[in-house]
Amino acid sequence: MPLVRVSLLEGKPDSFKQKVADSIHNAMVETINVPPLDKFQVFTDHSKSGFIYSPEYLNIRHTDGLIIIQITLNTGRTVEMKKALFKRIVDLLVESVQVRPEDVLINLVEVPRENWSFGNGIAQYAT
Amino acid sequence: MPLVRVSLLEGKPDSFKQKVADSIHNAMVETINVPPLDKFQVFTDHSKSGFIYSPEYLNIRHTDGLIIIQITLNTGRTVEMKKALFKRIVDLLVESVQVRPEDVLINLVEVPRENWSFGNGIAQYAT
Amino acid sequence: MPLVRVSLLEGKPDSFKQKVADSIHNAMVETINVPPLDKFQVFTDHSKSGFIYSPEYLNIRHTDGLIIIQITLNTGRTVEMKKALFKRIVDLLVESVQVRPEDVLINLVEVPRENWSFGNGIAQYAT
Repeated sequence: MPLVRVSLLEGKPDSFKQKVADSIHNAMVETINVPPLDKFQVFTDHSKSGFIYSPEYLNIRHTDGLIIIQITLNTGRTVEMKKALFKRIVDLLVESVQVRPEDVLINLVEVPRENWSFGNGIAQYAT
Repeated sequence: MPLVRVSLLEGKPDSFKQKVADSIHNAMVETINVPPLDKFQVFTDHSKSGFIYSPEYLNIRHTDGLIIIQITLNTGRTVEMKKALFKRIVDLLVESVQVRPEDVLINLVEVPRENWSFGNGIAQYAT
Repeated sequence: MPLVRVSLLEGKPDSFKQKVADSIHNAMVETINVPPLDKFQVFTDHSKSGFIYSPEYLNIRHTDGLIIIQITLNTGRTVEMKKALFKRIVDLLVESVQVRPEDVLINLVEVPRENWSFGNGIAQYAT
């Protein structure tokens, strides 16, 4: 159910994207009860002029290695679960692609369960 | 008012995109009272490494033909309307581009009416 | 905190994007209390077949110069603030890139404060 959008500065190899995808997905499985098979992600490469970030915000320094992650998911996760998710995503990304921990920006967009169809035109989560 | 984002594996011809756009739009007009002239959609092609989907989730098989559709729209549609929308999108896509019904993933993101401006810097829907 | 997605018909020069980015950001700083250093934006160029807009909606005419802006931000802005934001974005864009005022479509997606991490895996806004 999560739909994950990842934005990167262009030039990252395929193997990098695959590791990023796996890290984000595994973190969601471990911390917020996302089913292991529920993996849907799209990556977009942006040119330098179309990838704009603050070099420093809240005393956090960002570089061209920034990974911008926007996750659309069901409502219902607690603040503690969200905190655990953020931490785990960064830990796994540091491990898999050696990103600077500062260079991971994450945003969650929450929607009700009936707002998904995974195929066949059926709202599989609607009760 | 709906803003529709469609994500596809790269390589689909222009005619395919046009049919997909029309099918999604017509389904919204028919089932959730979207005005016929209210058509705004952006398509993004993703490379193989940046288009990640579960080959099977909830016993639904997905292939490279997967069409990922994210629609931002006003709140206020009932669950029944959403179900009708999902079904109609898939029916029209099967008709127009012969997609496998399993290969249509839809997500809705709802916002309040005052969150739109369609030009001139005015919130046309705000009351 | 705002994450800004800008969609354009392909072909705009880098200088155009930079001016658009600055105009949107400055408008947010001036009207809705976005911190000056809180600037995160991604631009996507769309081919003609993947950039679909209604030539006229609500008596507003749109052209290929359309700038589609989707801003994810914290909840809490009043309707008046949103109206001021829309107006200021358009005013600044007219000034900086001479866009037709009709050709600016804006959508806001609001999320709770705990839905952001700006680095280090920490939810900096969560209280």
